[in-house]
Amino acid sequence: MRDMQVEPQAFDRVLSSMCTDPHPAARDAAERFLATNPGDPGTYPNVAALEDNAVALLSEIAGLEEPAGYITSGGTEANIQAIRIARERAASRTPNVVMPESGHFSFQKAADLLGVELRIVPTDDRHRADLEAVRASVDDDTAAVVGVAGTTEYGRVDPIPELGEIAQSVDAALHVDASWGGFVLPFTDYEWHFDHAAVDTMAIDPHKMGQAAVPAGGLLVRSPDLLDELAVDTPYLESTSQATLTGTRSGAGVASAVAAMEELWPGGYRRQYVRSQNNAEWLADALEKRGYDVADPTLPLVAADVPRSTFDALRAKGWRISRTATGELRVVCMPHVTREMLASFIGDLDRLEVRASVPVVSDD
Amino acid sequence: MRDMQVEPQAFDRVLSSMCTDPHPAARDAAERFLATNPGDPGTYPNVAALEDNAVALLSEIAGLEEPAGYITSGGTEANIQAIRIARERAASRTPNVVMPESGHFSFQKAADLLGVELRIVPTDDRHRADLEAVRASVDDDTAAVVGVAGTTEYGRVDPIPELGEIAQSVDAALHVDASWGGFVLPFTDYEWHFDHAAVDTMAIDPHKMGQAAVPAGGLLVRSPDLLDELAVDTPYLESTSQATLTGTRSGAGVASAVAAMEELWPGGYRRQYVRSQNNAEWLADALEKRGYDVADPTLPLVAADVPRSTFDALRAKGWRISRTATGELRVVCMPHVTREMLASFIGDLDRLEVRASVPVVSDD
Repeated sequence: MRDMQVEPQAFDRVLSSMCTDPHPAARDAAERFLATNPGDPGTYPNVAALEDNAVALLSEIAGLEEPAGYITSGGTEANIQAIRIARERAASRTPNVVMPESGHFSFQKAADLLGVELRIVPTDDRHRADLEAVRASVDDDTAAVVGVAGTTEYGRVDPIPELGEIAQSVDAALHVDASWGGFVLPFTDYEWHFDHAAVDTMAIDPHKMGQAAVPAGGLLVRSPDLLDELAVDTPYLESTSQATLTGTRSGAGVASAVAAMEELWPGGYRRQYVRSQNNAEWLADALEKRGYDVADPTLPLVAADVPRSTFDALRAKGWRISRTATGELRVVCMPHVTREMLASFIGDLDRLEVRASVPVVSDD
Repeated sequence: MRDMQVEPQAFDRVLSSMCTDPHPAARDAAERFLATNPGDPGTYPNVAALEDNAVALLSEIAGLEEPAGYITSGGTEANIQAIRIARERAASRTPNVVMPESGHFSFQKAADLLGVELRIVPTDDRHRADLEAVRASVDDDTAAVVGVAGTTEYGRVDPIPELGEIAQSVDAALHVDASWGGFVLPFTDYEWHFDHAAVDTMAIDPHKMGQAAVPAGGLLVRSPDLLDELAVDTPYLESTSQATLTGTRSGAGVASAVAAMEELWPGGYRRQYVRSQNNAEWLADALEKRGYDVADPTLPLVAADVPRSTFDALRAKGWRISRTATGELRVVCMPHVTREMLASFIGDLDRLEVRASVPVVSDD
């Protein structure tokens, strides 16, 4: 039992995660449903019924009139399954998927697994999908166009309605990855969801900004028959087919997603968005005042051009921070990230800079 | 909050599940690590270190000298990833996988996803892979041969060493699905693991007979470089690549797997195997005495030819039971299944039969 003396990660210095400390109601639900499996609804009917509620609530958040989808293990599974649906429905035998470079690396996994070509196109100077580049890349073999609503690196929202038009022009599906953004976007003016544009499928994760416990991702589809593309027969289960990527699934994730959404939608999520967005803007200001280049935090995510040596020194002080592909410091203002944490982080940064500006005493 | 009044499934009538009530130490560990993500080791180093321990313990159980693998979301992910490794390593551009009909439906998912041909061969009169049929089905395009060590329907163990020889004869991989059987087989005389045969990859799930909390499956590979076939680059994580199918993962599953294995391997698992096996033999005897055809429970799983009407009446009494593909009643003697539960189940069966033998009073 020695190993189990190890402490789980405390969240007091975590600035890099897109997950967060679950809401107390979500944690309680996860613990109660720890030993249930929504993948076997004949045996575990209660949690299977809860999943219907989870999908209904997610659909309401994402402007989907007829609820359809399921609770996935996370955004990666939702993205894989969406590309799988698109591949199955495409007429082409050599299908491709067109995605901005801001898309998540899970689409690379999807392409590898599914044997589809991934065409990665540039973003514009605001880190959003470059529409001209998307238009130039789609063709008759395009199975899906991917738009991101809340990018991992800069929190940007692609022009989703325009991407939908491009997808429709070549009979391709539009998949929106709102894994992280889905629980903050309802309180902004962005057009991102099923009721705003010709969206076919969406990834939207309760276990990120939704404050549910891992694993609780979400796949939504515009029409229930899209799920049929994923179904395999299930002998020895009392259900007859299964559309999920995994088999046994965590009832904890499903129950905690329902608990979080019932508790927080919409008022609690709105208040959280305001808090997180204010924190992001405060941090961006603080970094700018210190002379760093900062990408404007249009959603609660800050990227700033901090030197690698400073970054490493902050990590050595225990800050869990990460970097964009081009090396910028990246801070995600999740619900567990408070103003006090950010002030303490900036305090550490200031102390580092003071030390760096003191001339080094040499032995020479 | 109305929905969260719903009760999770109690296990007192669950005879159909391959999952079980987690061991108290496993439940405790799961609750402590609920908000951690081993998919992001730069942010959550403690749970990432625990995963190394989980793989080391699993490797010991499965006779693998150099520990290599990871904690999956379950057996389905492990099976998909094993077939993916085999596909990547196969020279053929039209790879096939040869599997006995007793293989799990997750291989159908794997074949659909990965675009490989699934060649399903018959089992013999003991429900084990028919070696002649396997030999006749492999060819130069065969990427993998699948053997099952503890089948879902009858708890049978395929002749793994012989399947390894057949796989080697065509340069194919041997994948062993011990998702359910892996935590009981160490206490039997079967040859099933890395040290018994030319096994390349294995699925072995702590969250089944291992008494960990869902989601805690396991993928083991004979050599760490096999995992490279699965890796994709991971910008904006402090790690540089990721070999898992999912991205964000449940620290609860990883921590509870370690806790269960540290608590139970090997003595506790041995005692549980003896209890479960005795229960299965008791149930098989009880059913045979009542005139049903029963498949010999070579592992703790009983299949019996009970009429559909009786099956339905037992389900109506709240028993969670399932059926084999040919319609037999199937009872999995998991750790939560006690002698008292089985006696109560047989009591209900007897009462149904008494009623069925009383002439129905008709209004005519």
